[in-house]
Formats: sequence, structure tokens, C-alpha cells
Amino acid sequence: MSETTQSPLLFRTELAVRWRDLDAFNHVNNAMYLRYLEEARLRWLESLGEAWMDEHVAPVVAQALVNFKRPIGWPEDVLVELFADRVGNASLTLGHRIVSAQDPTRLYADGHVVMVWFDKRSGGSAPLPACVRAAC
Amino acid sequence: MSETTQSPLLFRTELAVRWRDLDAFNHVNNAMYLRYLEEARLRWLESLGEAWMDEHVAPVVAQALVNFKRPIGWPEDVLVELFADRVGNASLTLGHRIVSAQDPTRLYADGHVVMVWFDKRSGGSAPLPACVRAAC
Amino acid sequence: MSETTQSPLLFRTELAVRWRDLDAFNHVNNAMYLRYLEEARLRWLESLGEAWMDEHVAPVVAQALVNFKRPIGWPEDVLVELFADRVGNASLTLGHRIVSAQDPTRLYADGHVVMVWFDKRSGGSAPLPACVRAAC
Amino acid sequence: MSETTQSPLLFRTELAVRWRDLDAFNHVNNAMYLRYLEEARLRWLESLGEAWMDEHVAPVVAQALVNFKRPIGWPEDVLVELFADRVGNASLTLGHRIVSAQDPTRLYADGHVVMVWFDKRSGGSAPLPACVRAAC
Repeated sequence: MSETTQSPLLFRTELAVRWRDLDAFNHVNNAMYLRYLEEARLRWLESLGEAWMDEHVAPVVAQALVNFKRPIGWPEDVLVELFADRVGNASLTLGHRIVSAQDPTRLYADGHVVMVWFDKRSGGSAPLPACVRAAC
Repeated sequence: MSETTQSPLLFRTELAVRWRDLDAFNHVNNAMYLRYLEEARLRWLESLGEAWMDEHVAPVVAQALVNFKRPIGWPEDVLVELFADRVGNASLTLGHRIVSAQDPTRLYADGHVVMVWFDKRSGGSAPLPACVRAAC
Repeated sequence: MSETTQSPLLFRTELAVRWRDLDAFNHVNNAMYLRYLEEARLRWLESLGEAWMDEHVAPVVAQALVNFKRPIGWPEDVLVELFADRVGNASLTLGHRIVSAQDPTRLYADGHVVMVWFDKRSGGSAPLPACVRAAC
Repeated sequence: MSETTQSPLLFRTELAVRWRDLDAFNHVNNAMYLRYLEEARLRWLESLGEAWMDEHVAPVVAQALVNFKRPIGWPEDVLVELFADRVGNASLTLGHRIVSAQDPTRLYADGHVVMVWFDKRSGGSAPLPACVRAAC
């Protein structure tokens, strides 16, 4: 996992917490962390400048692990950092850290997400798109 | 993890997928799985018939792991099953399985969520409430 | 509007409130009412047994009005009722009432939603699908 | 409504659309417009620098009207503008416009939201807080 290894940083992006991200406990709801990761991941893929999916090949999330370190309040801006933890043939393990934008030493969460590319026609796995592999 | 061990089943509940749980890929969004688990967990805690949190002691989610096995569509009803994977002094690891209500052999996801009870005044951990420990 | 006229009832459906529908004020968030209406509307359209959209023609929401009468808590089941307030050539005004399933005299919200069918190729409006018109 | 009158502008704020705001039709979901308005409204209230709610007095949304003019895609930044459409004794009608941040002539939605302040003890209405009245 990125928190212990020296995986290379792929992408860093800032997100504004919305008030509605809070739940009835007045903290950002746990499921929102996956949403922040998703937004960062898609911004990263869009930033590659080349197709990371097409009519036939698309990624799915196979596993998500989040370690919740501290509650997040509102208003707040967070930084999401993505790391190349493991680059496989058809899969990519993205390490992640969510920290405060005001104080990046303030760690809100870490963990990883495993993405797998698959072929919609065969239903089987597909090799990572070239632009994704190159970026890692 | 519940998928490999024989952890005892704590609770089973049915949820109706909402159309808006789908994302632009036309499948239930990954983050929604955490929401289904949350809903099941709270229903379970409410079912205990005794206080599982109070002014001073409350649980937080310390870790969530989800293995995504199959996409979920709409309309669909899912069953969420919770298992007592590990019962610690201040923490509880709830294994989970999300399956189709129509066909419970159709596994959508499994994994676990680690909950920790803490004392709001001290900021430190607190023992599991008696009703939670008894239920496990 | 359905609250004042005797528009015919088109559909009634029950929805389970989720804990996460609550916001930090511990009531169901205002935006969720639109989600409940959307879920009811789609269940109704699906219930018609014929195509209510296709490759070329689809509905959009042109206007939504919600009068919030009472806060909704959790756990709770609500009934959503849809009425044919006005049936136009290309548009349909659906009146709505959200009430408690346990006590249908307990009104949570009313108002209406205006749907317009449009032709994706021309960008202009399209006549209501036959099954929708027949149902109204 | 703000679209036809010259109500004074109270507040303008920019929001980043998130990918998950899209629904299965690949456009920002209708209910999200209420969320954008809510976020803008809360940022505005927070910007007043004085208490706009306290232990005893709080606002609720009594009515929301949204006219949907154009679909919103992702990625996109929107501007939300809030107007003082009507200032009552215990209520405030906030006109709103949602436009593209890149091209503010591109109108996504307009309408209004009626807020009412109420006294939690009596359950009756309460006068607008001084800072809210002054801002309007």
C-alpha cells in the first residue's frame, strides 16, 4: 500500500467538500471517500490525453480498501493523491491518500483501489491501455 | 473474511436498488455498495433493542474493504448479509456479502468493515456496547 | 396542482428511506424528495409495459416544484403518489404527494414535475408515447 | 422570479461538477440542481459572518422550484447566483440561476427557493436573523 511503500505519485487533485457530503453524524460520510477517489481517478484518466476506454474495452473497480484516519468536516478542501502501487497486465492497483488541502500532513484516509480492464465482447480481461501503462 | 471463513451470520436485510444508484456507466456505482452496507449495519444495530451509542460513546468506521464481483442493475433487490468476522475489545470486524434477493447465489460483493467504538470525551477507544457484544 | 384539484391518480409506490438520505440536520435532505419522485416516476413508466423512450425519443424534466410540508426521519417508509395534472401534446405535468406509508394522512410534500418528450435528432419536442398518453 | 425581475444579486459562487453527479442518462441528475443551490445557499449564509441559526432558531426550505433549461455534462464548472426575490418577516425567497462558469450566458436552470425561519421550541415561525435581513 502507498502508505508504506514508495510507489510513484501519479496524480494530485483538489476537491471541495460539499455540505451534503456530511451525514447525520455531521462528518463526511464514509461512502463519500470512494466518491472523492472516483473523481480523482477520472480526472487523472482524462488528463492522459488519450482514450482510456472505448466501445470495446473499459475499466471496472475490482476492489476498494479505505482506511479512515480522521473525520472530515465542512467547509473543507481535500487533496487526493493517487499512486501506482502495482501495474499488472490487465489490472492497476492505485494507492491513494486523502489529505487536507490546507495542511497536507493531515491525513484523512489511505488505501488502494484495484482496477481491471475488460473486453466487453469476450467478457474477459483486456490489457491496460497504452496511455495508462505509459503514465505508470 | 466472511467469504473464506465460517463466521456466524448476524443479520440479513433486503434493500431496493434505486435508479439513481446507477452511474453514467448504467451500473450501481461502487460507492453505493458502502451505502448498502451502512444501511444494513444501522438496521442491525437498531434491531438490537438497546443503545449501541449514546452521548459519550459512538462507533466509527475504521476500514472498509469491498470486493466487487458483478455489476448490479436496476430494478433489483439485494440482500445484505453481515457476519461477525472478529470481535475485539473496542472493535468489531463485520464481514459482508451483497447478493441478489431473487437469486442469493448471485454474489455482487463481499469484504468487511471494521468498526471501532470510541469515547468522545477522551478521544480514545471504548469497549463494545454490551448489546453488540452479546449479539456477536 | 394535485393538492387542490381532483387529478386522477396514476401510480402509488412505497419507498424505504435510507439513513444516508438524512443530512447533517438529521432530516431527509430536500434534494432527496426529487429522488423519491424520480424513483416513483420511473417505476410508473416501467409499469406501462411498453416503450416510454427509445433511441430517438426520450423525456426530460423541464420543471420541478416541491412544497415541503414536514420533515422526514429514519427509519421510515414513504408512499409516493403521482397524478395526471395536465396532459399536453409533448408534455406531461405529474402532480405528486409524498406521505407516510404508516399514516397516509401525514403529508410530507406535494407539488408537480413537468416532463417533456423530445426528439434527439431534431432537438425539438416529440409527442407523448402512446402508452403514456393511454395511461393518463 | 429572478429570471424576470431585477432582484438584487446576493451571492455568486463556483462549483465543480463531479462525475457522479451524472446519472445513467449521462447528464447531471435533476436532484443535483437542488444540491448545488443548497451548497451555494450555505456558503452565502456562512459568508455573513454572523449566526444565521442557533440552538433555538433555524431555517427550513418550504418550497423549491427549478426550471431546467439545458443539460449539464462533466467535466464542467457552474456558477450559482442567488437573488433576494422577496424578503418577508419570517421567510426569504431566494431566486437562483445556475450558469456555466466558462460561459455565463449559458443558462442551465433558474427558479427560486423559499426559506422559512422557525422557532424550535414553539414550532412557529421566527423573524429572519438580523444578518440575513441586512444582507438582503
